[in-house]
Amino acid sequence: MAGYRTDKDQLLRRLRRVEGQIRGLQRMVDTDTYCIDTLTQVSAATKALQSVALQLLDSHLAHCVHDAIAGGGAEADAKVAEASQAIARLMRA
Amino acid sequence: MAGYRTDKDQLLRRLRRVEGQIRGLQRMVDTDTYCIDTLTQVSAATKALQSVALQLLDSHLAHCVHDAIAGGGAEADAKVAEASQAIARLMRA
Amino acid sequence: MAGYRTDKDQLLRRLRRVEGQIRGLQRMVDTDTYCIDTLTQVSAATKALQSVALQLLDSHLAHCVHDAIAGGGAEADAKVAEASQAIARLMRA
Amino acid sequence: MAGYRTDKDQLLRRLRRVEGQIRGLQRMVDTDTYCIDTLTQVSAATKALQSVALQLLDSHLAHCVHDAIAGGGAEADAKVAEASQAIARLMRA
Repeated sequence: MAGYRTDKDQLLRRLRRVEGQIRGLQRMVDTDTYCIDTLTQVSAATKALQSVALQLLDSHLAHCVHDAIAGGGAEADAKVAEASQAIARLMRA
Repeated sequence: MAGYRTDKDQLLRRLRRVEGQIRGLQRMVDTDTYCIDTLTQVSAATKALQSVALQLLDSHLAHCVHDAIAGGGAEADAKVAEASQAIARLMRA
Repeated sequence: MAGYRTDKDQLLRRLRRVEGQIRGLQRMVDTDTYCIDTLTQVSAATKALQSVALQLLDSHLAHCVHDAIAGGGAEADAKVAEASQAIARLMRA
Repeated sequence: MAGYRTDKDQLLRRLRRVEGQIRGLQRMVDTDTYCIDTLTQVSAATKALQSVALQLLDSHLAHCVHDAIAGGGAEADAKVAEASQAIARLMRA
């Protein structure tokens, strides 16, 4: 069960906004917008994507990891290790 | 004049791929894909977006900044300062 | 109780190595080492510092957050929210 | 010739402050300071290190890269490519 069941609508709205930013970037490149302005938009889209990541991660800790720990057993340790690896991938992205 | 005139096609291809990744993320959230798998895809999209940033920046240095410096004068310093600020925004994104 | 009780020695060794890298950077600047080589060393020190962060975070989830959730109650939610905020600070560093 | 000749003092002051932060981190781990507080300090040190990187990079563009481009020839392209690679390393750190 995915942990983001409660805030699915907000996540989808955010992702649709990121999609709009990426399409905007294509138009900027296509119409030879000044590189620095395009780069500013890339920074904004990256920041928006990281906010999505943080929201997903928070929900995952609050639901999936929480439930695994509350349930006890080896599953709890596996979930914590898996979350740590996901955080490492995000920090190195 | 935008610096990425020579590699516009590659930039547009990369941005269309990022757009596909963002749409894939919407489907993952919509179909309750396991959060960790969704996060892995967010990391991949973020990485792809940073590669676009690096390509834009490299072109900008090689064309716009290069030409401003070769032309001489105060414009050169302004272009270097502007590029540094864009790099700072990208690192803090 | 701090969660890193079990791997304190490894954390201290890593931090001492980062300290050595920072002292090395001072020598590089002091002796006018070529900027790009100095920047490569800054990247290495930043990466080492992020590994320390990931180790701290993993221990924190596996001990402090784990114990709060296993103990139950409002404390559990507070610990998860606090961890999410720390992750957000690391990603924006 | 290193590009940071004009702001060496400021760079050294910043690096000594980072060194102090790393030593502070060792004390925090050694005295079992609460993990989240230690992580906040890691974020601060990482941010300080990135400011050093941005200052080094700005000086490098304004001096070394600038002089190579003003001098003309193949050296200019090599310097721009080298700077782009350093920026990529910093963004992936």
